[in-house]
This record gives sequence, structure tokens and C-alpha cells, in this order.
Amino acid sequence: MIRVIILGAGNVAKHLYTAFYDHKSVEVVQCYNRKGLRLHPNQKEITITQNINSLKEADVYILAVSDDAIEEVSNLLPFKNKFIVHTSGSVPMHILNSDNQRGVFYPLQTFSEDKAVDFTSVPFCLEAENAVSMNTLQKLSSMLSEKVYHISSEQRNVLHVSAVFVNNFANYLFSTGNDICNEYDVPFEILHPLIQETAQKITEMNPDLAQTGPAIRNDIKTIKRHLKILTNNTQKEIYKTLTRGIQSKYGKKL
Amino acid sequence: MIRVIILGAGNVAKHLYTAFYDHKSVEVVQCYNRKGLRLHPNQKEITITQNINSLKEADVYILAVSDDAIEEVSNLLPFKNKFIVHTSGSVPMHILNSDNQRGVFYPLQTFSEDKAVDFTSVPFCLEAENAVSMNTLQKLSSMLSEKVYHISSEQRNVLHVSAVFVNNFANYLFSTGNDICNEYDVPFEILHPLIQETAQKITEMNPDLAQTGPAIRNDIKTIKRHLKILTNNTQKEIYKTLTRGIQSKYGKKL
Repeated sequence: MIRVIILGAGNVAKHLYTAFYDHKSVEVVQCYNRKGLRLHPNQKEITITQNINSLKEADVYILAVSDDAIEEVSNLLPFKNKFIVHTSGSVPMHILNSDNQRGVFYPLQTFSEDKAVDFTSVPFCLEAENAVSMNTLQKLSSMLSEKVYHISSEQRNVLHVSAVFVNNFANYLFSTGNDICNEYDVPFEILHPLIQETAQKITEMNPDLAQTGPAIRNDIKTIKRHLKILTNNTQKEIYKTLTRGIQSKYGKKL
Repeated sequence: MIRVIILGAGNVAKHLYTAFYDHKSVEVVQCYNRKGLRLHPNQKEITITQNINSLKEADVYILAVSDDAIEEVSNLLPFKNKFIVHTSGSVPMHILNSDNQRGVFYPLQTFSEDKAVDFTSVPFCLEAENAVSMNTLQKLSSMLSEKVYHISSEQRNVLHVSAVFVNNFANYLFSTGNDICNEYDVPFEILHPLIQETAQKITEMNPDLAQTGPAIRNDIKTIKRHLKILTNNTQKEIYKTLTRGIQSKYGKKL
């Protein structure tokens, strides 16, 4: 049995609580957040505290708080030599107060409040200061997911910037496609299957091999026609920058 | 029974042939391509011709050739008043020679040579000069897919430029994420589930609502750290351009 305390009340805190809730081998002993919020409708009042000084005993304290609050919350902890982890993709492990054993328990996925998470396929990126701590994290993450990786703070930074490209920026391109369709009264849903297939393909082949389109073909006629259709200057700039990027990567020039 | 002749031997020609092959209500009477290639290992030699002047009778002639060749091939056709269509997302219907009835039969999906296509979920964008022709296309596409749309040449252009954003450019971002991971020996597969979820999410919510990350949060500290990690100037430029784009769209400024 692993005893867990979750600090924070955001999406990651809630989804982790829900995932642990049904697990026989994990007990969420207590949750801390400043507003005393429940992380789950079924959570018992008695397991919630607003007072960080009344934290109970646990095998791991999960600081599922915003990046900016990690250091501060770790400094407020009223104990020493316990095992504390944060859940952030971009904050180094060593920002946690060194009075405690430190680690990172980073589920690499995009979480929305209203959407249930199937943790089975969520990669967990683990880091810990020693083998005992790592063993605890390894057990805990293996209960939830089939995909567990040992990742250093430096590697996690690299993953985080890559995630900005493949998630934040890709979603922004989807939103731009949506805007263009809306402007001309074309249903964006026509593009949904293409988007699914684009994402699916890279699990089966290197994305370099999946690259198609006017940029890599150096199809200047089509590129010019597309730029004419775009009325928004930001959209034009993005079109040109990414076209240049594709052509410079694959050795063609405008 | 709809009698079809396919012109061309590229991915679209092959995948359409394969899709029609098993259909009782479609007969692919003949295929034309300059090299006399089979579109399917089981295709009978007698149904292939290299001579455009020996084309047989059919209800619809599908010009599944490259964008640049559509006009030329339509001008070479040795008959009049038959029904000819092209399969391109970016070429106007009226580029087809007006000696024949004209239409467009555009399956909006990314096709790879080696990957089987499940046409059931592929949107077909149809255009035709008259109701009889449209009826033929409607029947033909409904046999393959549940998603059939009547789309004008102008709308198709809009879809095509949107598809560049959501497919070509999104794939380029995936390839960039892959490059960044490779540079630092981090397995890119850790990001696969995030990519799948990013694509899945937009079928359930507006991409504007799914937007997350340092750009929309105006998290300047993280943005600066990310730019430091990126060693490649093109990657830096793309990061900055897309960050500016997100911030200008959602009303925040660097």
C-alpha cells in the first residue's frame, strides 16, 4: 500500500486523485489546497485540509500545483526527510526544498477539467534523488500506466519544448484551419478525419517520411494561390514561415 | 451498376481502385496510365491501357492524375459529352475540357502508398455541372463513405489551404518535435499519446478552447527557457512566430 498526499486542486491533482481513488494499492490519505476544495465528488470531507501544517504521514507528497507555486509550497512544508515530488514538465527537480527527498512524477498529457483521463496510455516521466524514492515512483506510476520512463530534468525540458510544438502549436494550427473554414462558411468537421490520420500516421512512420504538400513539392503556383486566399496577416506570416521551414529542412528553396 | 474508368497510377488512383474492386455496384471497366501499370496485384491485364485513344465506354472517367496534368489529360480525351471528374483539392472544376460534362470527386485525406485506406470515414467533396452528374457522384461516393459533401471550387480551395495548416504544417511540427528529441536522445514515442490526444480533442471541442501552453498563459520565463534549448535558428523562428500568433489571436502580448 502506498500512502499518498496530494497538494493542489487543479486538473492534474483532480485527475490523479480520480485515478488513485479506485486503486486498492494506493491510499490518498489527505489532500491539501488553500480553498479546501474536494478533488472528487466522493471525497470525504475529513481527508481535505486547508492547513499545510496539519499534513499527515505519507510515503509520497505530490505537489500538483502550478509551476510558479512549486518552490513556495515546498518551502512551506512543515517536515523534513520525507519524499516530495512535483508534476511539472518544465520545472527542475532541484527547485524543491532540499530538506526533503525530492522527485518528479510528470504525466505527459494534456488535461482538461471535463474530460476523463485514461492513464493507461499516459507516459509517466520519473526522476528521483535515490533508488528507494525511484522505486516508490516506479510502483505508483506502474499502477496507472503501461508507459513509465526515467527522465532527467534536462531531458524533461527537451520533452517540454517538443510538447509545445506537437501540442500547443499543432492545436493553434487546428484553430487557424477552423478560422479559415469559418470565414468562408465551410464546415471544419470535413477536416477532422485528416487531422486524426495526420496524428495517427506518425505513430507508424517517421514524420519526415509523412511530409507532403506544396512546400515540400516546391509547388510555387499553389503556395501563391493559398497566400491570396488568406486575408489575415498573421495567417500569411505563419504560412510563409512554416513553408520556408519545410523547404529549408528538406533542402528546397522558394 | 456504375461503370468507372480510372486515369492515373498514383496513390489516389490505386486506393480508389482497391476500394471499388470489392464493390458489386461498381465496375472498373478500364484503367489508363502511360506506363501500363497495374493499380492492384489482382487487376487483369486486359483492363489496362497505355493508349488514351482506346478508352472504353463508362459512366464516369476519374482523372486521378497530378494537379499539373489534369488539364492536359482532359484535353487528350478522344470523346465528347461524357462525364469526367478530377480528384484534386486545389484545381478548379472548370480547368477540365468543356467538351465533356465536368465534375470533381475529391477524397479529403492524406494517402500513403503502403497504408491501406478505410474510405468509410474519408470525406468526399463533390462538385458537378448538373444534377444528373451530381447524382452519379453522390451514388459512387456513398458506396465508399458515410461523409459526402457538395463543395464548390471556391470552398474546395478554402479546404485545401486549411488542410495545409492542419496536415502539412502540423506534420512539420511533429517532425520538429522529433528532431528536438533526437538531438537530446529523448525517445520521441513519449510524445505519441499527447499527439493523439491533441488531435482527438478538437473533434470534441473547439480548438480555441483546447489552447494551452506558455504562449497563451504569457509565461515569459518558460518561453525564454525554451528558446535557449532550441539550437536551430529555423526552430527558434517558428517558435517565436507561432507564439506571437497565439498571443495576437488570444489578445495577449509578449
